[in-house]
Amino acid sequence: MGKYVYQFEEGKKEMKNLLGGKGANLAEMTNIGLPVPPGFTITTEACKYFFENNEQITDELEKEILKNIAKIEKKTGKKFGNSKNPLLVSVRSGAPVSMPGMMDTILNLGLNDDSIKGMAKLTNNPRLVYDSYRRLIQMFGDVVMKVPKEEFDNILESIKKREGFKSDIELNVDHLKEIISEYKRIFKKFSGIDFPQEPKVQLLMAVNAVFKSWQNPRAISYRNISKIPHDLGTAVNIQTMVFGNMGDNSATGVMFTRNPSTGEKKLYGEFLINAQGEDVVAGIRTPQHIDEMKNVLPENYNDLKKISNTLESHYKDMQDIEFTIENGKTFILQTRTGKRTAEAAVNIAVDMVNEGLIDKKTAIMRIDPKAIEQLLHPIFDSKELEKSKVIAKGLAASPGAATGRVYFTSVDAVGAAKKGERVILVRKETSPEDIDGMAKAEGFLTSRGGMTSHAAVVARQMGKCCIAGCGDIEVEEHNNRFIAGEEIIKEGDYISLDGNTGKVYKGKIKTTIPGLSGNFNTLLEWTDNFRRLGVWANADKAADAKKALDFGAEGIGLCRTEHMFFDDERINYVRRMIIAKDTNERIKALDKLFTFQKDDFKSLFETMKDKPVIIRLLDPPLHEFLPQDEKGIKELSKELNVDFSKLKYTVEKLKEFNPMLGHRGCRLGITYPEIYEMQTKAIIAAAVEVKRGKDVDVKPEIMIPLVGIDKEIKEIRDRVTEIADTIISESGIRLKYKVGTMIEVPRASLVADKIAEYADFFSFGTNDLTQMTFGFSRDDAGKFLTIYRENGILEEDPFTTIDENGVGKLVKMGVELGRSVKPDIVVGICGEHGGDPKSIELCNRIGLNYVSCSPYRVPVARLAAAQAAIMEDIEIEN
Amino acid sequence: MGKYVYQFEEGKKEMKNLLGGKGANLAEMTNIGLPVPPGFTITTEACKYFFENNEQITDELEKEILKNIAKIEKKTGKKFGNSKNPLLVSVRSGAPVSMPGMMDTILNLGLNDDSIKGMAKLTNNPRLVYDSYRRLIQMFGDVVMKVPKEEFDNILESIKKREGFKSDIELNVDHLKEIISEYKRIFKKFSGIDFPQEPKVQLLMAVNAVFKSWQNPRAISYRNISKIPHDLGTAVNIQTMVFGNMGDNSATGVMFTRNPSTGEKKLYGEFLINAQGEDVVAGIRTPQHIDEMKNVLPENYNDLKKISNTLESHYKDMQDIEFTIENGKTFILQTRTGKRTAEAAVNIAVDMVNEGLIDKKTAIMRIDPKAIEQLLHPIFDSKELEKSKVIAKGLAASPGAATGRVYFTSVDAVGAAKKGERVILVRKETSPEDIDGMAKAEGFLTSRGGMTSHAAVVARQMGKCCIAGCGDIEVEEHNNRFIAGEEIIKEGDYISLDGNTGKVYKGKIKTTIPGLSGNFNTLLEWTDNFRRLGVWANADKAADAKKALDFGAEGIGLCRTEHMFFDDERINYVRRMIIAKDTNERIKALDKLFTFQKDDFKSLFETMKDKPVIIRLLDPPLHEFLPQDEKGIKELSKELNVDFSKLKYTVEKLKEFNPMLGHRGCRLGITYPEIYEMQTKAIIAAAVEVKRGKDVDVKPEIMIPLVGIDKEIKEIRDRVTEIADTIISESGIRLKYKVGTMIEVPRASLVADKIAEYADFFSFGTNDLTQMTFGFSRDDAGKFLTIYRENGILEEDPFTTIDENGVGKLVKMGVELGRSVKPDIVVGICGEHGGDPKSIELCNRIGLNYVSCSPYRVPVARLAAAQAAIMEDIEIEN
Repeated sequence: MGKYVYQFEEGKKEMKNLLGGKGANLAEMTNIGLPVPPGFTITTEACKYFFENNEQITDELEKEILKNIAKIEKKTGKKFGNSKNPLLVSVRSGAPVSMPGMMDTILNLGLNDDSIKGMAKLTNNPRLVYDSYRRLIQMFGDVVMKVPKEEFDNILESIKKREGFKSDIELNVDHLKEIISEYKRIFKKFSGIDFPQEPKVQLLMAVNAVFKSWQNPRAISYRNISKIPHDLGTAVNIQTMVFGNMGDNSATGVMFTRNPSTGEKKLYGEFLINAQGEDVVAGIRTPQHIDEMKNVLPENYNDLKKISNTLESHYKDMQDIEFTIENGKTFILQTRTGKRTAEAAVNIAVDMVNEGLIDKKTAIMRIDPKAIEQLLHPIFDSKELEKSKVIAKGLAASPGAATGRVYFTSVDAVGAAKKGERVILVRKETSPEDIDGMAKAEGFLTSRGGMTSHAAVVARQMGKCCIAGCGDIEVEEHNNRFIAGEEIIKEGDYISLDGNTGKVYKGKIKTTIPGLSGNFNTLLEWTDNFRRLGVWANADKAADAKKALDFGAEGIGLCRTEHMFFDDERINYVRRMIIAKDTNERIKALDKLFTFQKDDFKSLFETMKDKPVIIRLLDPPLHEFLPQDEKGIKELSKELNVDFSKLKYTVEKLKEFNPMLGHRGCRLGITYPEIYEMQTKAIIAAAVEVKRGKDVDVKPEIMIPLVGIDKEIKEIRDRVTEIADTIISESGIRLKYKVGTMIEVPRASLVADKIAEYADFFSFGTNDLTQMTFGFSRDDAGKFLTIYRENGILEEDPFTTIDENGVGKLVKMGVELGRSVKPDIVVGICGEHGGDPKSIELCNRIGLNYVSCSPYRVPVARLAAAQAAIMEDIEIEN
Repeated sequence: MGKYVYQFEEGKKEMKNLLGGKGANLAEMTNIGLPVPPGFTITTEACKYFFENNEQITDELEKEILKNIAKIEKKTGKKFGNSKNPLLVSVRSGAPVSMPGMMDTILNLGLNDDSIKGMAKLTNNPRLVYDSYRRLIQMFGDVVMKVPKEEFDNILESIKKREGFKSDIELNVDHLKEIISEYKRIFKKFSGIDFPQEPKVQLLMAVNAVFKSWQNPRAISYRNISKIPHDLGTAVNIQTMVFGNMGDNSATGVMFTRNPSTGEKKLYGEFLINAQGEDVVAGIRTPQHIDEMKNVLPENYNDLKKISNTLESHYKDMQDIEFTIENGKTFILQTRTGKRTAEAAVNIAVDMVNEGLIDKKTAIMRIDPKAIEQLLHPIFDSKELEKSKVIAKGLAASPGAATGRVYFTSVDAVGAAKKGERVILVRKETSPEDIDGMAKAEGFLTSRGGMTSHAAVVARQMGKCCIAGCGDIEVEEHNNRFIAGEEIIKEGDYISLDGNTGKVYKGKIKTTIPGLSGNFNTLLEWTDNFRRLGVWANADKAADAKKALDFGAEGIGLCRTEHMFFDDERINYVRRMIIAKDTNERIKALDKLFTFQKDDFKSLFETMKDKPVIIRLLDPPLHEFLPQDEKGIKELSKELNVDFSKLKYTVEKLKEFNPMLGHRGCRLGITYPEIYEMQTKAIIAAAVEVKRGKDVDVKPEIMIPLVGIDKEIKEIRDRVTEIADTIISESGIRLKYKVGTMIEVPRASLVADKIAEYADFFSFGTNDLTQMTFGFSRDDAGKFLTIYRENGILEEDPFTTIDENGVGKLVKMGVELGRSVKPDIVVGICGEHGGDPKSIELCNRIGLNYVSCSPYRVPVARLAAAQAAIMEDIEIEN
């Protein structure tokens, strides 16, 4: 027989398979000199041997266990069953792979009718000791002898009832003694034996039970689900109990090695003098701040500071520590990596690099990209938040917090904002017509639509808070109110939106903007040294572009020109263009729009200077620009002075059954060539003017949307280059420009080699590509996608994270086919996925040149891109 | 120098490259003993040599040409320029590849001021001879000397004007002499030389000009477009002119070796005594039927019969022949494969196999699959058709001819049909709600929708005539009329639809059903020996299934269960199911539907016996079953006795932005499992009852629509098999069934390996797959697809013929991935493409197991499948 038992000193963290996770960790802490209560681990090999041996603890194993108990007795000066200074231990399972809550634990093993008396004196807290004994009998009965738990509970309840007590803490020592006696009776009744008074018997029986728990049904099914092998076995950890309730030089507490909320390098935590962990949980006494310990237990405070340094330099990260002080001696019961806020994560990572604890790669890998988005948006004051009432919950579509008065139309929102009110725009669903109201609102709440609905996309782009698809509310736009359960919220009432949780609150809540530390910028600069993906931004206007530049964007990956069409002074020219009865009339209206568009592009180019700016030609179907209801059509017919019935006929004719798959994108460019001609002129003329006026090397790139057939791009490209080259040669300015396409129709990926012949760049529009690849309309899919997620049919929302097996396969195919004919073609992504870390990882793996996302996600993308590159390097090394 | 000139006897049809197409054909006819007027061909090599030699005819070539003229003079006894019996020839270009109308021809070369007199005597028709001479000068002037044509025309016109003539035939010999004199003047004015009187000079100049015409701009651009190499060169054919107008033992005519309309083996054609081809064109005299020739020119008739046999046994096909009889001698001027009707094509092919002329493969390859669809549908009486007025033209969406009174709603159509009227249903667009009216109508006319719109699909399935997407008409349903240009067609007016041409006629036209010859069945039976693809049918009801069986279907590839939901007595149960407020209410309504569905399936199984029947579970979004307008909702609320506003709310909630990409297919199966449970029960219970009652080995196959994610099919399959296995085991009947899926979402093809794990079969739904792969909504794409076709952006309508590069790639990928994990998986196609010959060819190449199409296309598919297999074998052999 080999060695089946290891004192903590004999192990280390690499011995997880033999000692289990917990055992290896206790060994590691012991060996780096931490004051861990002495103990030992019975190995997983012993467990396997136990099962091979008819579930018997052999004599040899028994001897080895008892020999190790004797070692602990020697170390601690305590003795099993001794009535003066008894040794009490905990018995805990600990498998090589974490199986939380799947197996059993017994505390205070070693208590019996004798030792209990000694403990009562030692702790000077007989009530606690008797309560511990009661618990031991119950735990032991349950875990070892399978005595039904409810039998013990019934006794406790009946005595509490008799005395008229509401809570356990009202029980005094006499009550507890009565309970113990009753518990022993129950124990015997169900197990057939007396509660064992001999600690060694208790111990062996407990070890036996913990081994057996490896095969209990809960554990087996957990392993099945988590695909953990069934033959690993569990180790058993036997550890001396320590007590923080032995008097005023005893205490218990938890602490972080740094402030988990700010990252400040200073102990952070709380403790209770003369108490056990349970007292903290029970909430009878209020714990003190760890700083107080300097005054009351200065030596222990120094111990903890030293321990904190030791742990950080060993584990290279901020630690979350449980400690107990027993009679002036400091013990560490557990240490683990501490949870922290995004702000703290950034500060700690950068500080640790500066302290020489970790390198930059490690710092970058430590930050959750999703979490840092929080740093860029307002948050609620936490105290006010606690007091506020949640009236509904929807999809957390765009992060941040917003408070304001409710308005139900874009016009009303604009009006209220002009009066200086803070506005929340509430609608069933937003459309491009709402853009003015959205620009003025603090946040949006919609009852329909998903994570990539219009409201959600615009919100993320504007950096505003949005809760979408909030089925809990019923919006009655005609009544200027919405109903959320029993609450009726009228126009002008205050509500607050938490875009991080999707919760809608009644009333006002104060918001604050978290400080952007210098560390944050430092970290982002580091990422630029590691990432291979460029990070560009989707921005339609100069203000957005400015924001994107501030966040580190290296170009504009998507400027949606149609967003420029909705301004008050422009929309009617757009409409005149659409209802034009011939090409001449259409060109007249387009001439007006040309001036507007040229100015827009000039300010974009001036902002972006020598960085590339990809401008997408008109994409949405024309009916999106026209009113759809009788009333709107009537008003417009008056405004434009056109015949109502003709206008109505035009509106009717433009209606589509499936606008998503309809007459839009380059299909418009081919059927109404004059629209793209105007846009091309505006782009190139603007670029020429900026280059001439400011001597800036502007880089306009024209993107043709929705191409699925090579001849589509060929025909449009021919026209675009003809117009552009004419303007450039007439100007006498040397200007380079590119012409490329969106890859957003599945067919485009399938024939990307043919399309690449006419494209200088590809930009994957993964929103539409996802819609068409799955056959999911993003506006309608909410109904079943929720159920799909709940049933596990889809693990992730494909509109949030690229579906690697389907959509990702098309992206990969598109890139490979495109590069097969044009190896240098620039390939990026400009869908909403461009800001999603997991999707960025995929883009890095596929080998795209850049990702483009909304300005507020640029920092997220820079970080995620760096992490993806670092991870890939690590994988290549291994 | 080699040999540059070949007498017809020296060539053969394989010498196309050297002699050109026409020359090789004349040689071939000469060599098989046909009486072809003697002549020779100057080779393409001579043409190349001509261009290498500064566009000069060398002395050697000149000598060789003249030597060959001498040979002809000897053969014919005629002499160039002889005033008694002059030799006249035609000079024609003839390239190796046909370039119709691209190059020039000169007739009657050899006429001059002398020979014209001899000819006048010989023909006894001086007017014709002088006219020929006039034409020669004009043709020669134009082709050889580039004299502007209009100069000649002016002279002709001015003399006609002077004389007050309307047409050329009023000119007498004296007028023609005057014209000839004027023509000669013009000729000299523009060319600087007199019109050459020496025939040899005429000939050499003509050859020179024909060679040069190879490089004229028309010819060059034709070659560029048709991708014909520019260095092939053209040959020149010199052939003796023969004259059918030399008296009563002369004649001219055309004939087919068999009747091109019925296929009957009997000469078919017409002739004119003492006439030239031009006389037939001028329409002065009415030609006689070829049978008459037996009486007037019995020997020549016998010649023609013999020639007909010779040609058929040489070319192995029915021939279309031009002949001339000159002084009792029969000459063949041209022979080519004769055009024929579908009926004739079938009869000729089968007869020729029986005659031992061709083998079965050749017979099969001879028939155009698209054409034979005509044989199964009514056609218009051709005389009545000629007199009828076309008032509009739309897409020829389903073949056949229909005549009837116009009705604008399903209800009105049903009412009129009950009164015994023949009905044409006219709507903007049909929907499943119109199904009753469609069943009663003779044909449908819609102003919107394309080749795969609802109306088109249903029409093809029902074998009815349909014209869809007829933008020429404006349907005013509320006024019960439609407008087509200046015509207003009111309810009850007669119109006629030609589903083969897309033409809409005003008024009634008689229709007939072409007889289905036994030959047709014979031919189809032959196809079954060659094809590798199975041919199944799409059929929802027993009557359709019966039709499909009659046409040779080997199974049902698609039964759309939703079509069973629209019957009057059922639709309200469907609606109750949809608006049910909880699962219990829904199950109650479903129980009623169960009985209906079970009966439907029983009759399907009884009809199909031991052939497989694939039944698709419910596919369309639920809102398709509910009324969408206020009025309809109100009526329904009364009928079902439910609250109007609640019903309206349900209708509103079910509305979708893009129903094509919405809550349908298996998404319904997952969110409302009870629907698929009911359908599964109905299918399996029906199968059990039929198997028990009739002892038939029924083969139910359950198809899950719109799967895009493996877990979708897994979840539904689990439920389906659980229910099915329970019913089967309780019944005590041994019944095998399959569960498979449609592959119609692009993602399904991309992850077909994962889906195949849970599928016994794949059926490609290429309609939806095309919609999603291109991002084309079939209901909306008409607007731009027409322009795409016109501009050549798309060569074919992807809804008619599978887009090989895009959609085809996905199909191929799906098949390969599916078979990679399940080599025996049965793979078919059930979209509209299943009946399209070109798509069937692709399906054969990809290696599908079967195609499924509407019953009326089953014969088309059998034939196309056989042709595809034969073609593939030929390619493999080569």
